[in-house]
Amino acid sequence: MSEFRQNPATGEWVVIATERAKRPHQFVRRKEDVRVLAPYDAKCPFCPGNESMTPPEVVRFDDAEGRWMVRVVPNKFAALQPEQRPVRSVEGLFRKVHGFGVAEVVIESPLHNQTLALMRPEEVEQVVRAYMNRQYSISSQEDVAFVNIFRNHGPLAGTSLEHPHSQVIASAIVPPRVREQISFAMKYYDTHGQCAYCDMIEAERRDGGRIVLESEHFVALCPFASRSPYEIRILPIEHSPIFGFGDDRLLKDYASVLRRTLLRLYRGLNDPDYNFIIRVAPVGDESVVYYHWYTVIVPKLTTPAGFEMGTGIYINVALPEACAEALRSTPETDPGA
Amino acid sequence: MSEFRQNPATGEWVVIATERAKRPHQFVRRKEDVRVLAPYDAKCPFCPGNESMTPPEVVRFDDAEGRWMVRVVPNKFAALQPEQRPVRSVEGLFRKVHGFGVAEVVIESPLHNQTLALMRPEEVEQVVRAYMNRQYSISSQEDVAFVNIFRNHGPLAGTSLEHPHSQVIASAIVPPRVREQISFAMKYYDTHGQCAYCDMIEAERRDGGRIVLESEHFVALCPFASRSPYEIRILPIEHSPIFGFGDDRLLKDYASVLRRTLLRLYRGLNDPDYNFIIRVAPVGDESVVYYHWYTVIVPKLTTPAGFEMGTGIYINVALPEACAEALRSTPETDPGA
Repeated sequence: MSEFRQNPATGEWVVIATERAKRPHQFVRRKEDVRVLAPYDAKCPFCPGNESMTPPEVVRFDDAEGRWMVRVVPNKFAALQPEQRPVRSVEGLFRKVHGFGVAEVVIESPLHNQTLALMRPEEVEQVVRAYMNRQYSISSQEDVAFVNIFRNHGPLAGTSLEHPHSQVIASAIVPPRVREQISFAMKYYDTHGQCAYCDMIEAERRDGGRIVLESEHFVALCPFASRSPYEIRILPIEHSPIFGFGDDRLLKDYASVLRRTLLRLYRGLNDPDYNFIIRVAPVGDESVVYYHWYTVIVPKLTTPAGFEMGTGIYINVALPEACAEALRSTPETDPGA
Repeated sequence: MSEFRQNPATGEWVVIATERAKRPHQFVRRKEDVRVLAPYDAKCPFCPGNESMTPPEVVRFDDAEGRWMVRVVPNKFAALQPEQRPVRSVEGLFRKVHGFGVAEVVIESPLHNQTLALMRPEEVEQVVRAYMNRQYSISSQEDVAFVNIFRNHGPLAGTSLEHPHSQVIASAIVPPRVREQISFAMKYYDTHGQCAYCDMIEAERRDGGRIVLESEHFVALCPFASRSPYEIRILPIEHSPIFGFGDDRLLKDYASVLRRTLLRLYRGLNDPDYNFIIRVAPVGDESVVYYHWYTVIVPKLTTPAGFEMGTGIYINVALPEACAEALRSTPETDPGA
């Protein structure tokens, strides 16, 4: 019997379609479909030696020998431009805003065939440090209202460049979809006197069945109302509306949970394509009591179609409990090593 | 320069990214990628002769010789089940509803390789008649709150069966995303004393630049704030919250506009994959003044990625005005004939 489940933090419904359900192992990528890349590609604008093919760096972290580990550069093919101002205009019914925005690329490694899941802990920490640097720095820029950090891994996730990278896009507009989520959380707070996400984390930890892994400060879980197979959210256990870390221990803890979660996905599903998004409160809402930042990882294992587009309700053909269990029992070590 | 545009009827923003913009002809499917199917497939459960492979028909329209033209059958692999009741339960924070729902398949033609775009006008009318039959009949069933009629054409649109078909999925839950849209329209009505969609249609017709085609009662247009290249909406010019036709002339007019729009997409882009959805008001809202039914057609020409998932704001790399113009000048006759 299938069932509707409601996300307690957003009010969104999903269908868990157990009639069509697949066992977790059915989502494993076939060996012949796994991408094999060379560590260096002479034509890749993100490979070492080709630094002149990108705009100048805004941030760069080097190793002890002075070779770069992470570079952040403006996106050369940006959908939004920082040199515009967000001038609003309205003609009759039609409202426009100039395409102001900040669009940057975080080049995560000098190695063309590297991926976060397989990087050393200190390498992932540098990437997270770059995210935090951009989150803080871009939030303080004039006209920026919302910062979105995300990663598209593989062609099904919409990436066009293989070299490991994430993106940052900031806009002067708070997305209505985000506002709706916040507005739901605000009403929840007013009703329950608690952050909806804090309550949800507590309930998930008490239940335990959907937890993937936990550290001192973070929890990775397959949400009760997962929209798709192997959807994972990483949340700070303590209330915090905005991505960022008061001290380095916290940053290292997050980097470790992110890396280990991606590593289990990599091992368990044979390097699936995925998107991840760091969802934070808008600029100015850094200390609200009712919103909670998180990272959502969505492996691209199914194709949303007319039902999802027409309703916003996703049909999920895998039990979140089964996915969490499969990930819990996936070893982080290389089984072939 | 790129720009944000706001959908006047929903408040949603999109980015029209002219910096990355493609010319309309760049979306044409390559000849070698066009699907070629046989008119009959012995293994297809929707082909004539295999009627026993589907559950019994709920509706069937025959031609003058008594051969079926359109069959509607329950979906054998339904995500929702009509024999359940929508019983709600809550355990702590986690709310569930049994997976009650009606899921049917509209088999649009006996020909395995047929498609709406190429069907004769009277054949498309029969399909639309089947939609209307199901819209009315399912809406009157116990516990049904929302009916969603949609079509997934091609693998990128998430279809698993080639034989031409649409789907109907009805649920006891009104999707929150639909509620938000309705709530926006309701506030618009209270502010302006007009249906937001009626106002939008009037403004689009006055402007003219985004109109694809128009009949006595319907208009097909590429919306000002299109989320993706060649997105098209077909709207009734007169206010009407729910799919259905008071008389046959109206039904024929809609079927003709739907067919001609799909035909221009077929000719212009070489049979692209697409989803279409008939978006209507929930059951019980059949005569509200503030909501307006429409059909949205979304060709699958680009891949939404982390930005779209993180914000709900789509980056559209084609100008709606250019897409509308390309479709206006696409002949409906076969250029090779």
